[in-house]
Amino acid sequence: MFRNRQQLIENASTEKLRKMRVDALTVMEAALNAVNPMNAVLEKLQVINRNVVVDGFTKPLDDIRRTLVVGGGKAGGSMAEATEYILGDRVEGGVVNILRGTEARYRVDRVKLNPASHPVPNDEGAKGVQDMMRLTSNLSPDDLVLALISGGGSALMPLPADGVSLEDVQDVTRRLLSAGATINEINAVRKHLSAFKGGQLAANCYPATLISLILSDVVGDPLDTIASGPTAPDASTYEMAHDVLNRYGVWSSAGPAVKRRIELGLEGKVAETPKPGNPVFEKVRNIVVANNLKAARRAADKAEKLGYNTKVLSTFIEGEARHVGTVYAGLARSLSMNDLPVPKPGALLLGGETTVTVTGPGIGGRNQEVALSALMKIAGQDCVVLALGTDGIDGPTDAAGAIIDGASLSRAQSKSLDPAKRLRENDSYSFFEALGDAVFTGPTGTNVNDLTLILAA
Amino acid sequence: MFRNRQQLIENASTEKLRKMRVDALTVMEAALNAVNPMNAVLEKLQVINRNVVVDGFTKPLDDIRRTLVVGGGKAGGSMAEATEYILGDRVEGGVVNILRGTEARYRVDRVKLNPASHPVPNDEGAKGVQDMMRLTSNLSPDDLVLALISGGGSALMPLPADGVSLEDVQDVTRRLLSAGATINEINAVRKHLSAFKGGQLAANCYPATLISLILSDVVGDPLDTIASGPTAPDASTYEMAHDVLNRYGVWSSAGPAVKRRIELGLEGKVAETPKPGNPVFEKVRNIVVANNLKAARRAADKAEKLGYNTKVLSTFIEGEARHVGTVYAGLARSLSMNDLPVPKPGALLLGGETTVTVTGPGIGGRNQEVALSALMKIAGQDCVVLALGTDGIDGPTDAAGAIIDGASLSRAQSKSLDPAKRLRENDSYSFFEALGDAVFTGPTGTNVNDLTLILAA
Repeated sequence: MFRNRQQLIENASTEKLRKMRVDALTVMEAALNAVNPMNAVLEKLQVINRNVVVDGFTKPLDDIRRTLVVGGGKAGGSMAEATEYILGDRVEGGVVNILRGTEARYRVDRVKLNPASHPVPNDEGAKGVQDMMRLTSNLSPDDLVLALISGGGSALMPLPADGVSLEDVQDVTRRLLSAGATINEINAVRKHLSAFKGGQLAANCYPATLISLILSDVVGDPLDTIASGPTAPDASTYEMAHDVLNRYGVWSSAGPAVKRRIELGLEGKVAETPKPGNPVFEKVRNIVVANNLKAARRAADKAEKLGYNTKVLSTFIEGEARHVGTVYAGLARSLSMNDLPVPKPGALLLGGETTVTVTGPGIGGRNQEVALSALMKIAGQDCVVLALGTDGIDGPTDAAGAIIDGASLSRAQSKSLDPAKRLRENDSYSFFEALGDAVFTGPTGTNVNDLTLILAA
Repeated sequence: MFRNRQQLIENASTEKLRKMRVDALTVMEAALNAVNPMNAVLEKLQVINRNVVVDGFTKPLDDIRRTLVVGGGKAGGSMAEATEYILGDRVEGGVVNILRGTEARYRVDRVKLNPASHPVPNDEGAKGVQDMMRLTSNLSPDDLVLALISGGGSALMPLPADGVSLEDVQDVTRRLLSAGATINEINAVRKHLSAFKGGQLAANCYPATLISLILSDVVGDPLDTIASGPTAPDASTYEMAHDVLNRYGVWSSAGPAVKRRIELGLEGKVAETPKPGNPVFEKVRNIVVANNLKAARRAADKAEKLGYNTKVLSTFIEGEARHVGTVYAGLARSLSMNDLPVPKPGALLLGGETTVTVTGPGIGGRNQEVALSALMKIAGQDCVVLALGTDGIDGPTDAAGAIIDGASLSRAQSKSLDPAKRLRENDSYSFFEALGDAVFTGPTGTNVNDLTLILAA
C-alpha cells in the first residue's frame, strides 16, 4: 500500500526506530483498509437469509419491488461496485456520478457510472443528476433506493434549480468566497439554488425506502454538509440564504436568476428544502459507512495488537497545520519522556483536517507540514510520527504525507536541509522528498480526512 | 483562590454545566496549591532525624559547617521563607534577589531579600549577585549552599563579566532579538558575557555542597535555560556565541566591550563556562521543586477524586494560542461525543506555553485566546474548558485565563459579543470581561507555565 515502504523503513537510524517505522506503516495500512470504500460498503450492506441488512435495519428482499442505485462522489465507482456485488441482479438500474477519467477502473453491470467534473461542476454532472431524479420519481413504498454519497459529491452532483444555471451558482459561490463567507454560509445559499442538495433527493424518493450509504470526508460527519446533504434534513432557509447574500454584500451583484430564485423562495412560491422532522425522512436511513473515527479505531486495534498502549485522542482536530504539528510534537514528547498519557510503548491517534495558509513559494501539503513542524521538536526522542491524508493526495503533491522520527532533524542537517526555512516557505514536499521520508500511496480512492499516528517506545 | 469564583459558577446555563464549572475550579485550585513556591519547597526540603533530606539526598546537619542561601527569581521571596522555616537558625546568611516592591510580603530573618528590577536588569540586581558570589567564594567541602532559582531569575540576577556593562548586554540582546535569533542562541551569547549564568554560580560554590531548588517556568524544564542556568552545566561555548553574533550580523555593530570579551574567550584568556562532566557538578544537586508536570498531576489526582476518568495528555504544548485552542476544542468534542480518549465523565489536562502573535488592537493573553478560539468549536457540548496561566497574569491583563463551556457561544451571542471578531482583533480579555468568564486569581507568586483542563460529562 505504501509504494516506498522499504525505503521508509531503511531510512531509520537505529534498530528501535526501524521497528517503530515498520509498526507505524502497518498500523496505517490497517486504517486505510478499513475505510477503503469497497470494504466499507461490504461491511455495512449485507444480504442475510434473503433480507437486506444494513446497520440494524432489515427488509425482506421479497418485499422489495424495485431496487435503484443513485449518488456520486469520488468514491462512487467503488461503492457502486460493492453494492452490485452484494445485491447482484436485484439491482434494477441506477446512475452514479464519478470523476471523469476513472470510468475504466470499475466493473459494474447495472449501474451507469456517469463521468462528471470536479471541483468545477459541468453539464455532464447535471445530466447525471437529472437522470437520478427521473429514476427516483414516482416510486412506491415497496421500492428501495440506495444512495451512495462521498466526498466531492457536491461538485460531481450539480442540479441548479429551475431558471438558474451552473454558471450562476459558480459566480455567486466565488463572490461569497472572496467576501469571506464560511462554507456553511455558502452552503445555505447553494442548497437554495439547487433542486438536489439539502435533502431534495430524499424528498424525491419518497415514499420509497431510501438507504444512504455515506463515506464522510467532513470532520464530525455533519450529514447536511457531506456532498451538500442530498439525503439529509436541511435546517437552512431561503431567509438565511438571503441574509448571507446581504451580509457579504453579494446580493446587489448576484445574477438576476439567483435573485429571482431567492425571491420566489422568500415569497413561498417555490418549495423549501425538507426540514428536520419532515415525514419524508421517516423512510430514510442515513448510514455512515466510513469516517475518520473508523480509520482511527482500526488503527488503534492494530497498534494494540502490535503491543502498544493505545489511545485515540481525537478525530476532530482542526487548525493551522504548522501549529497542530507543534502540538503533536508536545504530545510525542510527553509520551516519550513522561509515559503520558499512556505508558510506553505507546501509540496515539489524532484525526481531523488541518489547514495551510500558504504564504511561501514552496510545494507542500497539510500532513507534510504537520510533520515538518513536529520534526524540529521531537529531535532525540525515541518516537515516530506518521501524518497521512487518507485520500493519498496531500495538498497539490503526489505524496500522501510524511514520516518522521527522533533522528530526522540530524538526518536533515547532514543533508544540509533546513526544516525551519522550508516550513517558512511552505516547502514541506521538497523537504521530505529530499530527505526520502515523503510517504507515497497513490490515490487511495477514499477520503476520510487526515490521520496522524504517534509511536514512542 | 479564584477571586470571582461565585460569579464563574453562576454563569453556568444548566445544572450540569454548573457542576462542571465548580469541579474545574476545584481541580485548578489543587494544581495551583501544589506549585505554590512555599508548598513546593516544603514538600522537597526536609529535616529528618537531624539530617537535611532533599529528593533522596541526605546530609547530617552536624557535618555541615556553614549553610548559605543564594538565588533569585519571581518566587525567590517565598522560597527563602520556606527555606528558613525548615532550616531555622542553621542558616548563617544569604542573599536572594526578588522583584522590587515585593519585599514587604516576606518574613525572613537571616536571608537578605534584595530588590532588583525585571525584565530590564539593573545595578541593584548586579550588586546582589556580587554579594552572592562573595558569600559563596572560598567555601569548604563541609559547607552547604542552597540556591533558590525561579522564573525571572535571568533578569533579576545579572552579573556582567569583567569589562562588560549591563547596557552592553542589553544592547546586544536587543540587536539579536530584532535580527530573529532564537532564545537559545541569545542565551549562548549572554552566558558568555556573564560571570554568573551558565553554571558559574556552581563553579564558584565548589567544593561546597550545592543544592539548587528550581521552580521551572520553561517548558520541559531545561536546567541550563531556567534563570539562565547558574547551577547547571553549559554546553554552549565562546565559539558558538561568536557564530551567533556573526550569523545574525550583530558582530560588527556589537559594542567594543562585548567583542573584547568574546575575543578573550576565543583566545582562551578567560575561562569557559563549566561544561557537562565538569567535576564541580559532582557537588551539585539540581532539584526541580515544581513544574508544569507537578501541577498537571496534582490536578489529575483531584479530578480523579471528583469522579472523572482523567488523563494528562501532555505538558509540552507549544504553538500559536488560537490554533492550540482549536486543537483543544477538537479534544473536547471527541471526549464529549465519542468518549475518547476516556469514557465520560472525563477530564483531560494539557500544559505548556503557547504564543500569541499580536496583529490586532485588542487586549488579551495566551490563555484567554486559547479559550476564545475553542469556545466557537464546542458550542452545544456538555463540556467545560478552563485555560489558566499559573502565575495569575495572562499577557498584559489582570486575568489569569478564562473558563468556557458548551453554552458560552450562545451566551456571547445574546450579549452581542462576536467571538470570531474579537479573536481576529486579539481582544480576548475584553471579550471575557464582557461575558463575565475571565478568571481572576491575582498574581499567584509562582509560574510553571500554563495549564488547560477539559471536562465533559
